[in-house]
Amino acid sequence: MFESKVYVNRRRALTEGMAMRLSGDKGIAVFVGNVDAAMNYRGNDYKFRQDSNFMYFWGIDEPWFAAVLDLDSGAECLYGNDVDIDDIVWMGPQPSVASKGEAIGCPSTAPLAEFDKAIAAAVAAGRPVHFLPPARYYNVMKLAYLTGISTDAVRKVAPMAEDCGRHASLELVKSVVALRLIKEQCEIDELDKAAEIGYLMHTEARRGCKPGVLEQEIVGRMEGITLSKGWGTSFTTILSQNGETLHNHSHHQIITPGRLLVVDAGAQSNSYYASDFTRTYPCSGKFTTKQREIYDIVEQANELAYSLTKPGTSYWEVHLATVRYMLDQLKSLDFVRGDVDEMVACGISGLFMPHGLGHNMGMDVHDMEDLGENYVGYDDDQKRSPLLGLGNLRMARRLVPGHVVTDEPGIYFIPALIEQWKRDGTDKGFVNYAKLAEYYDFGGIRLEDDILITADGARRLGPHRLPIKSADIEAIMANE
Amino acid sequence: MFESKVYVNRRRALTEGMAMRLSGDKGIAVFVGNVDAAMNYRGNDYKFRQDSNFMYFWGIDEPWFAAVLDLDSGAECLYGNDVDIDDIVWMGPQPSVASKGEAIGCPSTAPLAEFDKAIAAAVAAGRPVHFLPPARYYNVMKLAYLTGISTDAVRKVAPMAEDCGRHASLELVKSVVALRLIKEQCEIDELDKAAEIGYLMHTEARRGCKPGVLEQEIVGRMEGITLSKGWGTSFTTILSQNGETLHNHSHHQIITPGRLLVVDAGAQSNSYYASDFTRTYPCSGKFTTKQREIYDIVEQANELAYSLTKPGTSYWEVHLATVRYMLDQLKSLDFVRGDVDEMVACGISGLFMPHGLGHNMGMDVHDMEDLGENYVGYDDDQKRSPLLGLGNLRMARRLVPGHVVTDEPGIYFIPALIEQWKRDGTDKGFVNYAKLAEYYDFGGIRLEDDILITADGARRLGPHRLPIKSADIEAIMANE
Repeated sequence: MFESKVYVNRRRALTEGMAMRLSGDKGIAVFVGNVDAAMNYRGNDYKFRQDSNFMYFWGIDEPWFAAVLDLDSGAECLYGNDVDIDDIVWMGPQPSVASKGEAIGCPSTAPLAEFDKAIAAAVAAGRPVHFLPPARYYNVMKLAYLTGISTDAVRKVAPMAEDCGRHASLELVKSVVALRLIKEQCEIDELDKAAEIGYLMHTEARRGCKPGVLEQEIVGRMEGITLSKGWGTSFTTILSQNGETLHNHSHHQIITPGRLLVVDAGAQSNSYYASDFTRTYPCSGKFTTKQREIYDIVEQANELAYSLTKPGTSYWEVHLATVRYMLDQLKSLDFVRGDVDEMVACGISGLFMPHGLGHNMGMDVHDMEDLGENYVGYDDDQKRSPLLGLGNLRMARRLVPGHVVTDEPGIYFIPALIEQWKRDGTDKGFVNYAKLAEYYDFGGIRLEDDILITADGARRLGPHRLPIKSADIEAIMANE
Repeated sequence: MFESKVYVNRRRALTEGMAMRLSGDKGIAVFVGNVDAAMNYRGNDYKFRQDSNFMYFWGIDEPWFAAVLDLDSGAECLYGNDVDIDDIVWMGPQPSVASKGEAIGCPSTAPLAEFDKAIAAAVAAGRPVHFLPPARYYNVMKLAYLTGISTDAVRKVAPMAEDCGRHASLELVKSVVALRLIKEQCEIDELDKAAEIGYLMHTEARRGCKPGVLEQEIVGRMEGITLSKGWGTSFTTILSQNGETLHNHSHHQIITPGRLLVVDAGAQSNSYYASDFTRTYPCSGKFTTKQREIYDIVEQANELAYSLTKPGTSYWEVHLATVRYMLDQLKSLDFVRGDVDEMVACGISGLFMPHGLGHNMGMDVHDMEDLGENYVGYDDDQKRSPLLGLGNLRMARRLVPGHVVTDEPGIYFIPALIEQWKRDGTDKGFVNYAKLAEYYDFGGIRLEDDILITADGARRLGPHRLPIKSADIEAIMANE
């Protein structure tokens, strides 16, 4: 938890942001914290993770809290229940809700039942009730129940005037996104911490990448580190010799000489800030010529993207410059033939990299993804592309200081996708399938860093950068 | 996953069990598998954990599956969707639903949308629709939607005839409990595996228990082991120097000489079978005299319970014999005064051990807890006690071979509880508060093993038992 003034300032900025977007009776903004999420039965729960938006504005890292911010009067109230003797036996003595309110600069607190009444009163009075589309099913049910709308409508984001506000609030989404996209110094400190834990996780992975080791062994050791130093992982670890499968979560294979190991993993600090790194290692400790050729393209693409990342440039442009570079290099290796600019325009890079260059990152590894990818990652005048790859770009905005993005180019050889393009003629004649046929067992390569946009450029997060040059990787692996 | 005949036999046994409990149109039994559970946003999910009942009867360890068993015709169908090219790019090639059905001896499969139609058809035809009370909110919503009843009713268990079956099915609960309580050999093998992972976790914890170490460091290392060797933990790890708080999940303290460290943790095997062990270590490596006196009582109580655990005896009796022993010993140390049998009858042990001796364990660490603790842990002729301690006993049944229970006596000094008893006179004059006053900073001690009831007695699960004798603990810690 940060100092109380951090939360006070955020709520004040939110109220101001809403005032700019609304007129007349602005209504109330409602925040529902997470409850415990059952793993296999109620009471045997996954490790508690607070809702990111609740955490951002209200800073309370416990289940069964809610809050209301009155956008007209400025009044605010934190709702939660004090503990009884049974709770003390099982969970130990707990600070009062009142003292928790003090700690976040919200002296007005009340029991949770009063929250339901406050919403009912606002609904009865016809006041606008602003809420964000919730991630969790319980919160969907709760908001549907409190506001009298359907669970589907709770997830729908639209301007408040539309359908008499029987949905999540676009104005609140935009106000929250505007704040959370620009990281404060206290957040940057947490992101640097998460990056350092990620560095330690990945160092363990690289050391564990030895022929004969079960992938799951390495994953466990990596995740143990992030549980020792922070909250845990920021997303389910990807560690696979089938790197061509972008989100591969099975870890039952043995590390095999000659293959490549893609490791895409990150940590959450104890305050829930994320890191997200990818490295790709040669399982033998040395790259083959084929592997090194592709690896070096991806490594240079990662570097190029970093060099282009600065205030004023859009990440859309950085994505396009990066895939242009990769296509140019793939052309020199005879994977593709023809005019590179035309290829970029036709989205040919999507065959090799069917994902975007990166995404926003903060308290969520894909920051605020539940608020709507386009609201988070696109400026109002930017439109999402229909092309594979560019269309998957989660962050396209013009960069400003305080943005945090990932830089994660990759090249994959995905047999099912190649066969589909060949069948459908999606490649428009640019692709040399004869050459690709030799790469069906190649796998994939992805290299990812986390970048903070600064006043005059950018810096990679964390005190240490994971080794990335192919020669450095080989030299280090030879000695580990 | 086990061999297909395991699942075929379980479903046949379930159909037979339901036939014994029902007459006329028996209807259909409906099983809803788990979907992914959002951690912080949809798509960034907690590690997938299948619903235990779905896993037990249908063996499919993936989200978005469901199944129906027709209790009249014997027909059965597994519902799930095959993947498309997008899924292959992100998740790799997947076996077909049809082949998954074959692997569990259910050749009849259909897309998930057909599941909704099958339920709608049964509801429309007025056939009984049996389902279990679900753990997860999504499944509650789904069943409420499919059957047209309220989300509260979906959680309510009652005989099918009651309220025209507008609730979860008691007959299905009882039939499932009868099967899952008695472990098959393939399950015992998995429980032994989970026990061995638990042994390794706890060995790491004991080695990490050194003055100056942050508790979270040790937790991370323990959990790394269970992620390397199995699915993960079977419940949120308890590792605390405030052992008097029964479910203490904060790990921000530094290991401090003179204190006790309670470690209550277990593993889930990759097939979701659980282990659950507790040990208590002296942070200095050596017990003080006060600590050793209490420790040895708990250690002997653990041993006594084990020696009494055999077919024909009820775990209710074992609990009572164990707390009787502990009270007798506490009397000899002058914590309590008076007739021990009267103290047992008055529930005085609840002040020192406000929980039960143990619980059933299997695929859930508190096995089947969501089906209703009394249905799982109590024979039809047993009634739950209102007393603190005995009333918290989760497993009271007469033991039969194949039962798996925990043996976890403890003694705690909980200042808030002691003060409450003193204030309210709950102790009926048996308690020597002057003596207790010297123990307010003691903490607590709990010692737990996992036990399989065999044909002629019992055995502790796992190939290795964690050291437990106070002298052994000190000798080992001196050399670690």
